[in-house]
Amino acid sequence: MTPALPRTGIGVDVHAYDPDPAPDAVLHLAGLSWPGERPLAGHSDADVAAHAAADALLSASGLGDLGSNFGTAEPQWKGAAGTALLAEAARRVRAAGFAVGNVAVQVIGNRPRLGQRRAEAEAALSSAAGAPVTLSATTSDGLGLTGRGEGVAAVATALVVAVEG
Amino acid sequence: MTPALPRTGIGVDVHAYDPDPAPDAVLHLAGLSWPGERPLAGHSDADVAAHAAADALLSASGLGDLGSNFGTAEPQWKGAAGTALLAEAARRVRAAGFAVGNVAVQVIGNRPRLGQRRAEAEAALSSAAGAPVTLSATTSDGLGLTGRGEGVAAVATALVVAVEG
Amino acid sequence: MTPALPRTGIGVDVHAYDPDPAPDAVLHLAGLSWPGERPLAGHSDADVAAHAAADALLSASGLGDLGSNFGTAEPQWKGAAGTALLAEAARRVRAAGFAVGNVAVQVIGNRPRLGQRRAEAEAALSSAAGAPVTLSATTSDGLGLTGRGEGVAAVATALVVAVEG
Repeated sequence: MTPALPRTGIGVDVHAYDPDPAPDAVLHLAGLSWPGERPLAGHSDADVAAHAAADALLSASGLGDLGSNFGTAEPQWKGAAGTALLAEAARRVRAAGFAVGNVAVQVIGNRPRLGQRRAEAEAALSSAAGAPVTLSATTSDGLGLTGRGEGVAAVATALVVAVEG
Repeated sequence: MTPALPRTGIGVDVHAYDPDPAPDAVLHLAGLSWPGERPLAGHSDADVAAHAAADALLSASGLGDLGSNFGTAEPQWKGAAGTALLAEAARRVRAAGFAVGNVAVQVIGNRPRLGQRRAEAEAALSSAAGAPVTLSATTSDGLGLTGRGEGVAAVATALVVAVEG
Repeated sequence: MTPALPRTGIGVDVHAYDPDPAPDAVLHLAGLSWPGERPLAGHSDADVAAHAAADALLSASGLGDLGSNFGTAEPQWKGAAGTALLAEAARRVRAAGFAVGNVAVQVIGNRPRLGQRRAEAEAALSSAAGAPVTLSATTSDGLGLTGRGEGVAAVATALVVAVEG
């Protein structure tokens, strides 16, 4: 019997830097906290990497997006950590009959420098997704919303496959 | 015998809002018409979601892009509906010896709200492609060309596989 | 035995046009030189297409990114051609136990017009990667950093699969 072809998905997320962060506000990015780095703003923890990863999984599986899954109809998710959203998205993907192959996330922004904590971030994101999540980073050479330092973007792809039986 | 590895492809599309729309102009997005929403401008119907999906399929298959397939050398496609371009792109992909696995499209923009018509849009796009096309949406948190409301963007991935025999 | 599921990866790159190019500076894009076209600026040859392709391969394989592979810790890669980075990234991906399925790259920008040299560019990039690299192009309808002509962007996806044995 021919195994099912995997399915690909995509997710982009952008958050602006918080113009007026609370004194104790902390940047949340790629499943980690970044003390001393400028926080991003959002209804949630604004973790663009975790959000893009979750959206890529939902996209691959045809389960909508963060807004349709965790929006105003499900207020219990308001303010949830990005890793909690990623874990719940992966759970819903599996409940819909898919196995998660992998997720790849790239963060686009000037700050923070992710390289030194890449292994730690990949472990946090992979633990949430229950599957390998890889993390990479780039800048946009001073151009666009990320280059001007207005915010941080992330783009992710995911691969899932329908489970037989 | 080892089955062929699938191939991945990517497509991004952006269209600006029409600065001076005709009185009867209608927004076309994700295979649907959106009466009452501000139209996008373009030589075609400016359906960024259908265009990104078509480009992702052509990209995965090595068949060029919308410009090389439906540009000035093939004037009969001028002004064609996005779903017509998507259907013809999928036909050319199959004619080149590939089966279409799936396409995943994410729309990035402030308007319209896609969630309420997601199933309808996915049906229209999937019918055009002859394969599952999933649709998701996000915003860019008020930043960049989509956040400023200058236009709407879409990003898509596709998976195809060479048909044996 | 079940064959390994392939893994997907993603890479985005952006470079600004050189504000003050040397008289003999030449645009490098998609593995080709483009005499007469405005050069992009960068520590390397600023070939956004080759860079996005290399980053997508590293992303799929969990090997970090261009910065972690070819950054300040490996100064011998400073100023390297994009195709040299792509070839070395593909070599590292294979050394880590993966086979490269394909890479798909889309260039987003006003100039140059890639269509006429697409086959030539795909041959150069595919030769570097040792696997099929497809090239497509689009514009952003006059919007954003590419639409304003500030620079050129590229986005890529890649598929790799763990080699058994």
